[in-house]
Amino acid sequence: MPAVPNARLVFNEVPQGYPEPGKTTVYDASPTIDPENVPLNGGYLLKVLVVSVDPYLRGKMRDPKIKSYSVSSRFDFGSRGASNLISLKPAFVIGEPLYNYGVGVVLRSELDGVKTGDHIYGILPFEQYKVIPNLQGYRILKNEAKIPWSLYVGLAGMPGKTSYYGWNEYSLAKKGDTVFVSGGAGPVGSIVIQFAKAEGLKVITSAGSDQKVEFVKSLGADVAFNYKTTKTSEVLQKEGPIDVYWDNVGGETLEAALEHASDGARFIECGMISGYNGTVYPVKNLIQIVSRQIKLTGFLSFNPYLVGKYEEPFYEEIPKRLASGEIKYTEDLTHGLENAGKAILDVQTGKNVGKSVVIVSQD
Amino acid sequence: MPAVPNARLVFNEVPQGYPEPGKTTVYDASPTIDPENVPLNGGYLLKVLVVSVDPYLRGKMRDPKIKSYSVSSRFDFGSRGASNLISLKPAFVIGEPLYNYGVGVVLRSELDGVKTGDHIYGILPFEQYKVIPNLQGYRILKNEAKIPWSLYVGLAGMPGKTSYYGWNEYSLAKKGDTVFVSGGAGPVGSIVIQFAKAEGLKVITSAGSDQKVEFVKSLGADVAFNYKTTKTSEVLQKEGPIDVYWDNVGGETLEAALEHASDGARFIECGMISGYNGTVYPVKNLIQIVSRQIKLTGFLSFNPYLVGKYEEPFYEEIPKRLASGEIKYTEDLTHGLENAGKAILDVQTGKNVGKSVVIVSQD
Repeated sequence: MPAVPNARLVFNEVPQGYPEPGKTTVYDASPTIDPENVPLNGGYLLKVLVVSVDPYLRGKMRDPKIKSYSVSSRFDFGSRGASNLISLKPAFVIGEPLYNYGVGVVLRSELDGVKTGDHIYGILPFEQYKVIPNLQGYRILKNEAKIPWSLYVGLAGMPGKTSYYGWNEYSLAKKGDTVFVSGGAGPVGSIVIQFAKAEGLKVITSAGSDQKVEFVKSLGADVAFNYKTTKTSEVLQKEGPIDVYWDNVGGETLEAALEHASDGARFIECGMISGYNGTVYPVKNLIQIVSRQIKLTGFLSFNPYLVGKYEEPFYEEIPKRLASGEIKYTEDLTHGLENAGKAILDVQTGKNVGKSVVIVSQD
Repeated sequence: MPAVPNARLVFNEVPQGYPEPGKTTVYDASPTIDPENVPLNGGYLLKVLVVSVDPYLRGKMRDPKIKSYSVSSRFDFGSRGASNLISLKPAFVIGEPLYNYGVGVVLRSELDGVKTGDHIYGILPFEQYKVIPNLQGYRILKNEAKIPWSLYVGLAGMPGKTSYYGWNEYSLAKKGDTVFVSGGAGPVGSIVIQFAKAEGLKVITSAGSDQKVEFVKSLGADVAFNYKTTKTSEVLQKEGPIDVYWDNVGGETLEAALEHASDGARFIECGMISGYNGTVYPVKNLIQIVSRQIKLTGFLSFNPYLVGKYEEPFYEEIPKRLASGEIKYTEDLTHGLENAGKAILDVQTGKNVGKSVVIVSQD
């Protein structure tokens, strides 16, 4: 079999503000691969089916000399591709493909326990094919629930785990609590809303467009507002105080949440997208942490303690609840790596509605 | 017996910046009391021996229409003096005495369980004599350790409890940890340093003068610096990363601590004095809470959970360790209510060295 294209999305340049398709990231269709003959060196060859687009990617699009403000993990691609035990904290490497959580299907394997046709979840490059050396950090998806592969990078993947782990470990929610979820229309926020409603709590949520507000209302949120047209502090003044704040946004929204927190409130610090692409809004009322005895917990979904406690229950429970329709979701699917740069930008500007996923190839 | 003076320190005016003696607070020696005949109405008459001066008092010197940024508790004096079950959160009342933790000796009592000569700890006015209706929120001090009464509002009182409760509950310190204590020369900081050193940890601490730096070194701090002449971030860059941060200061110091925190660091948010008397420094790197998985816990020493868990062990343990010299302390004693206004100002500007206490009367 002759070589076939192995197109990829390359990190081309550190963005100043928002990541620009064609400038920050460049689609390169010129590389080729021979799937039947590429050496596996004891590993396996994946055809990449889907890769995830998440807010935190912006943190990796930086000068590598600047310490990360984003995520750390065990895996890396790029120029040091041979090792998959390097931290995710490093910046993306200029000239190398971006990478993120994805799902691929095994075309060939020399590795015990991995066979042709298996579906593998883990960190994958924005690239059509990739030889992976082993299973460390990867998971073979059995998909007994028969949900789309794209969901395994969404509500059944990293964003879903983030919500599941963080909510179960840190919300300490009790009957009668009021919960505020910022960025409620995103994949993390949308499932947090549903967890909170399943416990019978009052849920206030913000989103960035009227369309998104309609979506979060359909998930059961009691109070939903467009933060671009309604002041967060006014809504919380009226509907609060809040006992749990799930923070995807930071900045001015966090300031409003501190101002309207109840004594002993729990703040789950999941992300601060308001500061990722420019000036960080400086929060001025941190004294409320003391006076209201607030507990803020920052966490990442690959925290080993959380993974050990929650990963298996998560895979046991969430795909089923998605398959049954008990947990609702929306996806924003982009077809083809050539369009992935725009998907990345849209997530930073908040244009996507639902979990952003790039469909790289059909199964 | 004729009436005697019952001098007091009155809250006179809301300060704009620092509280000014003679303006914010006014000494008034004109009231009188007849200790032998004042009606007790079933309560008891105290001669006030000592009252505490603490940073948080600044938060109560405000327009009562502004919600508190300071402390809440169960007791209040002032115009609603009959009730001692009102929150401490209210502002001080213009024209009424200030109040804070103090110790008094019982001159007369109509209350079962309280007898002449007993020493009582609790919220007392800045006033020479006071009739207290009951024991709710007060404690009879047995003082088996025979330490000075002033210590019962210092390291054996609220600041000591703050340190003891917060350290034991929230530090989660483990062997090899590095601890940063801001405001290390204050009563809270100075005992936290000693708790951390007793556990064999590396302690970095900041203080506001070279004299204070010498004091915190004498407590065993491994690294001590004058934050007015040395940049906190440079010290932490060299001596960190920090696993535990005990925050008495907030602002720029908190920002430096976030920048040099280890993954999973615990921040104990005890106070933010840097922002009490003017502009609040806006912290710009809160994203580190997420990326470094930091847990920040704000707390107040009268949190019922903490009181229930730690109050008795505290009184069992700390006075003894103070008496034996195992725990070191310094006090900054001010004699006479006429000088209390200056003591209050000095605590806000950081001029005091050691726990500030006003000696109102001799025992």
